Amino acid sequence: MADTPQGMTPPHSDNITISVDAMGGDEGPSAVVAGCAASAARNPCIAFILHGDESVLTPLVARHKALSGITQIAHSPGVVRMDDKPSQVMRHGRETSMWSALTSVREGKAQAAVSCGNTGALMAVAMLRLRRLEGVHRPAIACLWPSRGDSGYNTLLDVGADVRADEESLLQYALMGAAYYRNAFNAPRPRVGLLNVGTEEHKGRGEIKEAARLIAEAAEIGRYDFVGFVEGTDLASAHVDVIVTDGFTGNVALKTGEGTARLISDTLREELTAGFWSKLSALIASSPLRRMKRRMDPRRMNGGVFLGLNGTVVKSHGAADATGVSAAIKLAFRLAQSGFQDRISQRLVSITDAMHEKVLDPKSPEAARGHRDEDEDTQTGTSPE
Amino acid sequence: MADTPQGMTPPHSDNITISVDAMGGDEGPSAVVAGCAASAARNPCIAFILHGDESVLTPLVARHKALSGITQIAHSPGVVRMDDKPSQVMRHGRETSMWSALTSVREGKAQAAVSCGNTGALMAVAMLRLRRLEGVHRPAIACLWPSRGDSGYNTLLDVGADVRADEESLLQYALMGAAYYRNAFNAPRPRVGLLNVGTEEHKGRGEIKEAARLIAEAAEIGRYDFVGFVEGTDLASAHVDVIVTDGFTGNVALKTGEGTARLISDTLREELTAGFWSKLSALIASSPLRRMKRRMDPRRMNGGVFLGLNGTVVKSHGAADATGVSAAIKLAFRLAQSGFQDRISQRLVSITDAMHEKVLDPKSPEAARGHRDEDEDTQTGTSPE
Repeated sequence: MADTPQGMTPPHSDNITISVDAMGGDEGPSAVVAGCAASAARNPCIAFILHGDESVLTPLVARHKALSGITQIAHSPGVVRMDDKPSQVMRHGRETSMWSALTSVREGKAQAAVSCGNTGALMAVAMLRLRRLEGVHRPAIACLWPSRGDSGYNTLLDVGADVRADEESLLQYALMGAAYYRNAFNAPRPRVGLLNVGTEEHKGRGEIKEAARLIAEAAEIGRYDFVGFVEGTDLASAHVDVIVTDGFTGNVALKTGEGTARLISDTLREELTAGFWSKLSALIASSPLRRMKRRMDPRRMNGGVFLGLNGTVVKSHGAADATGVSAAIKLAFRLAQSGFQDRISQRLVSITDAMHEKVLDPKSPEAARGHRDEDEDTQTGTSPE
Repeated sequence: MADTPQGMTPPHSDNITISVDAMGGDEGPSAVVAGCAASAARNPCIAFILHGDESVLTPLVARHKALSGITQIAHSPGVVRMDDKPSQVMRHGRETSMWSALTSVREGKAQAAVSCGNTGALMAVAMLRLRRLEGVHRPAIACLWPSRGDSGYNTLLDVGADVRADEESLLQYALMGAAYYRNAFNAPRPRVGLLNVGTEEHKGRGEIKEAARLIAEAAEIGRYDFVGFVEGTDLASAHVDVIVTDGFTGNVALKTGEGTARLISDTLREELTAGFWSKLSALIASSPLRRMKRRMDPRRMNGGVFLGLNGTVVKSHGAADATGVSAAIKLAFRLAQSGFQDRISQRLVSITDAMHEKVLDPKSPEAARGHRDEDEDTQTGTSPE
């Protein structure tokens, strides 16, 4: 099983350049550069623009043969810190590696950007530099969740772009999440669920009931199946692919899942090293435990994708090591390669128009217009790697 | 380690009667009755009123010697189903075992009620039959969360009484949650955290920032320490005891934690039974794995406590088996025995008064009034079991 989604095809034969904010992240630039090198070693079609302090990055890049000839360094003296306020970075962040990384995408020098930095600042600067897609109220961040389904992943969004979401934003998340999942996993008709406190129709907040109505109505236009309300226990379910929620709830769910997995893994480690017999059993059990660890490794799911912008941006976990950074780069590469960004932007405009005609004003005769630009949303074929 | 919180003392020497809705729950009345019997076998000071269909319950009770002489059956023909709407049950539920179980508490025949039934209906009927404590806007449901701390548990509330909470409700949850934790774990000064999407002050929704201000201001009156914002990853943290959030977010977090634990446990089981060597290692590792399973067993944490009502109500998980029901009964017994309910009701009135004077109107000279009735909130001594 690969580190990130399988099943995409290259519509372009050219190399893909990834713009990397090399200064973000808790592990520092050496982990980021090592992650780039790991990706380059496995992928002959990739190139990098690394943004950050040239005097730091040049010797780091020189250490990795795989980066030779495919890596440009774009000097930027400033760094966005994890506790910088997004509003400050928007006003005073022009000299930072994060700003510079997004500018390369804006200028078409790179097809996607990756950063391990401050999520709020990254979203704020991305909105400023790349702008929202036409018709999108609020961008969202989609993450992968380990699943019992065939692809091994579900998608949860929004996990933190915006702490509130009204019913129309939740509808847009459903549309964008379905398009993302369709491209990432070659699934022609993803199943969309709406996160709630129960699966019964009478439960939940008013805006969620209204969102359920809108998402159900838009299923044909958005080419997904709506499975209705799902609960926190269903995040890993094989019966849903895309789980829609507001950014506050999604962020709490993501971190609760992470925290629970870490607690269990720590408890297991304590018990398996508590005495001689336990240590022996741990030794003998090491192979299945390693397999399990690999299946559940959060680094393999690393990469929150920003949806709804004029450009592909992948947010890597702040604490990502080289393996995690490499997974985020791979995800960015595949999304860039699939042409996902171009197609999602064409579709969203038409879908939003159609939604306003069909769902928000169901009597309109132009309801079917949204179907026009959707034909090229899924590619078939084999994976490039 | 025991199934539920240690550290309480009996202020009454009399027996404690628990009123049990014997018809609720997915496992049916036989699991509920078996849970009562398991509690009775370990606790000589307990008695039961079992509510439900007499013709079903009489033979079930007769099977368990431990229940003989301490169990009354209160016949009620109706059952609240898991998909019944709370509003329907409030109007037409007089003949149900749930209604009858709460009536026994209202009439003083029992000191606490336990039900595995429909949570929404149980809260609705509990509010109708027991009424809110004076000054409480909205009752909350508090659950236990496995923790790295000394007590082994944190408390999370609200996990589903109300899908919304304004800043004043969040403040009341902090006060009620701290009082509950103080009684349940004999912790004189619990540490309270407010769930948010980041620990930085500028993050999160407006009502949460305002709630943080109120909860910080009320720390002395409420006799807790406010540790500020916590994230989903902190639910098991040793640095916090009580985590406050709205019922929508709390319910999603609770179920996400459950779902994640189940996914990991299933994956572990698959990997450990995947081949001969794996099976052998599982056999040898069985003792540490069993210990870990016991430490993380969700049945031991079974029991959502309804806070803010004139009476103690414990909601057991709908899917609880006899072990889970017994844990919920034990929790109800200890809360009844600690006199928690009487003290919390005295305190909340004075705290609410003081809050309105001190926090909401900080210039009032009567700000200190809230301290008056708080002296008896924690008991010391040894556990009855």
